[in-house]
Amino acid sequence: MSSGLIKPQTLKGFRDYLPPLALAREHILEVARQVYRSYGFTPIDTPALEYAEILLGKGGTESDKQLFRFTDQGDRDVAMRFDLTVPFARFAAQHFNEIGTPFKRYHQGTVWRGENTQRGRYREFMQSDFDTIGTDSNASDIETLLVIHDLFGALGFDRFSIRVNNRMVLNGLLEKLGLAERTAQVLRALDKLHKIGRDGVIAEMGEQAGASPEQAARVLEFAALTGSPHEILDHLQPLLAGSAVGEEGIARLRELFNAVATAGIATDRVGLDVSIARGLDYYTGTIYETFLTDDPTIGSVCSGGRYDNLAGLFTSQKLPGVGASLGVDRLLAALEKLGQISAASTPAPVLVVLFDESCLGQYLRIGRVLRAAGINTEVFPDSKKVGKQLQYADRQGFQFALIAGSDEFQSGTWKIKDLKSGEQLSVAEADLVSTIRSKLNSK
Amino acid sequence: MSSGLIKPQTLKGFRDYLPPLALAREHILEVARQVYRSYGFTPIDTPALEYAEILLGKGGTESDKQLFRFTDQGDRDVAMRFDLTVPFARFAAQHFNEIGTPFKRYHQGTVWRGENTQRGRYREFMQSDFDTIGTDSNASDIETLLVIHDLFGALGFDRFSIRVNNRMVLNGLLEKLGLAERTAQVLRALDKLHKIGRDGVIAEMGEQAGASPEQAARVLEFAALTGSPHEILDHLQPLLAGSAVGEEGIARLRELFNAVATAGIATDRVGLDVSIARGLDYYTGTIYETFLTDDPTIGSVCSGGRYDNLAGLFTSQKLPGVGASLGVDRLLAALEKLGQISAASTPAPVLVVLFDESCLGQYLRIGRVLRAAGINTEVFPDSKKVGKQLQYADRQGFQFALIAGSDEFQSGTWKIKDLKSGEQLSVAEADLVSTIRSKLNSK
Repeated sequence: MSSGLIKPQTLKGFRDYLPPLALAREHILEVARQVYRSYGFTPIDTPALEYAEILLGKGGTESDKQLFRFTDQGDRDVAMRFDLTVPFARFAAQHFNEIGTPFKRYHQGTVWRGENTQRGRYREFMQSDFDTIGTDSNASDIETLLVIHDLFGALGFDRFSIRVNNRMVLNGLLEKLGLAERTAQVLRALDKLHKIGRDGVIAEMGEQAGASPEQAARVLEFAALTGSPHEILDHLQPLLAGSAVGEEGIARLRELFNAVATAGIATDRVGLDVSIARGLDYYTGTIYETFLTDDPTIGSVCSGGRYDNLAGLFTSQKLPGVGASLGVDRLLAALEKLGQISAASTPAPVLVVLFDESCLGQYLRIGRVLRAAGINTEVFPDSKKVGKQLQYADRQGFQFALIAGSDEFQSGTWKIKDLKSGEQLSVAEADLVSTIRSKLNSK
Repeated sequence: MSSGLIKPQTLKGFRDYLPPLALAREHILEVARQVYRSYGFTPIDTPALEYAEILLGKGGTESDKQLFRFTDQGDRDVAMRFDLTVPFARFAAQHFNEIGTPFKRYHQGTVWRGENTQRGRYREFMQSDFDTIGTDSNASDIETLLVIHDLFGALGFDRFSIRVNNRMVLNGLLEKLGLAERTAQVLRALDKLHKIGRDGVIAEMGEQAGASPEQAARVLEFAALTGSPHEILDHLQPLLAGSAVGEEGIARLRELFNAVATAGIATDRVGLDVSIARGLDYYTGTIYETFLTDDPTIGSVCSGGRYDNLAGLFTSQKLPGVGASLGVDRLLAALEKLGQISAASTPAPVLVVLFDESCLGQYLRIGRVLRAAGINTEVFPDSKKVGKQLQYADRQGFQFALIAGSDEFQSGTWKIKDLKSGEQLSVAEADLVSTIRSKLNSK
């Protein structure tokens, strides 16, 4: 490196998005927006920087949140947002009178956490959240499930499963078992089932929650129930009889699975999983996790749930709600792992070769003709050898090259070269759009 | 405010985007992406945080750039990006071998500047840039103009004008006048013409550039040329004869305006304005500014130009290029000022009223029917009085409410209420989609 140059590098834990990954991410975000909007969710945005106090709350400490925190030019204690939930809580409290309720918003944005990068985590990533606040209606819980379902369908996934549970059902059980006071500790142990196994969970429930081995075994038995949602609910009903919270949980789940059936959702895509507890204090009702059938090991790619009170830190106005968050970067990592990210660097299928520089106006013109027909088209800018231009086309992932010289201009035709097969054909300009369109549709 | 609550507020110079503004911004960004992609530009992204050294370069000082700069957890000197150009230069140098050239990228992202907020500036705003690098072909300069043109057309503007110039023409003139060594000072004075007037410019050119009043008057006379592009170029031709750089500038502008005519662009949308100098050192060729005819006072909403060397700070590889930046927040401010931002808070035209809670499944089902037909539809989640639900619909900006109770379910019909006119009609469910679609199209 010659002296005086600055080494081009990104910070540890940060990365650039090159075109193939950026195209895939953009697709995910655009599809998500379309689905959110189709249900009437509306966008908002909040600043990347907030007062540190807003993000940390009262109980939190900086190390909990791994904040990027500093003092700004005006001597303010500020930090970069580490999720979109806390800023939404602040937003909802601040603009309560303007937004009205119910309020259905989505928010796609970058968040920052000073995570340990050794676990392959990035310190900057995108979230795509949607929530309905200001209502405790089960209709919103059901809709949240429909949104997740439509989202993965629209993203092109055939094989995924959304696992639903309701914290009320878990709370009902713990109430019946006399463990109501130790709910957090019990559920924290239960959450580790896949990591530490049955015996580990029983031991931890004993140590942390004071549960007897029999109580712990009952919780595990409960969490292990399998079958169709209604089979499981029929099984739960007598176990929870007499617990008001447990019975309400069952009623809400029944209504949800009935509505899912009415809506015509395939039954293998939505299941009841009594073992999901998802976090400890925040969620109070329905909870959701989403797994890709082709690789469940990457974990839940869209999770969420119902909560009692979004913005208690900022307002005495009680704001119940329900929502979920799409892990955009986790989904991208999954798609990469499954080989489902196209290597193409270009969003355009067609490259117009600059064969004869004096005819630039013609090449620019045909580009506009194709664009007007909705076909993304690039015109090569330099009059390099055709071989070089085709090499570029190949490398960037174009599908077709259009070539024309004086012969073609005289006869009013264009040569279409299929860059995969090498096949070449001449078509009259009048047929160009329809020919390319049918070739694209048959791919 | 009750004790213990944290006051919900944003930092000075930062703001939330509420739904109407967020919807408008999303629309601008989506339209821009479509246009960029239609020309084969491909997305990239870079981190919000970079090493401060990368952003500051060698000559710059922190106060120049008004950086948000701090020391991170790993004791690194870091800062938030203040534009998308410097990160792109770093990116291009770092990934040169992967991306290949020509490389056409767009980048939409948030940037941060600790500006003086008294001038109504925000400290966080979005940019939407596109550039073609690795070529000095005039084809890319022409294409940049076409992209700007298509962008404003696609955004729905009928009345805008793109003003083009070429720094080579200005440089040629100054060479002929013997002012080549003082180019920066002369052009800096010329740039102030609209602010300080003719006499002010002559005075400043004398003081700062040592130009005689005659020389300054010649520059002003030159910059004041009006007429069609070819008339101006015909006028310039003899004035610049013998200056190689000036003649090349004229040739490139001629080719550009010829191509614009071939491409069928309306002549009132693109003009040659010899007075535009745009910045001082960075641009070396074609330059662009874009004004909204309905309010030119807000300044250029899309500006850019050709440069010789993008990434000289980071690599000895020379990377010429051309591009432009859409001022997303400036355009939003213009649209607000022109009253062109819809007050609607919802992206959905249709609200399904929850008239009878026991029929929730039916309401959810009809929502899915409308969504499948591409009509964004929200189902109200709470069984409040119909009047309350219609009040919500009105406030959020829905256009139609769908209402059905037992009568309608029995007869297989839905009531459509037009929320603007109050008009109401009953249609069979089979005709619902087509009826709503035709009503939406006639709005």
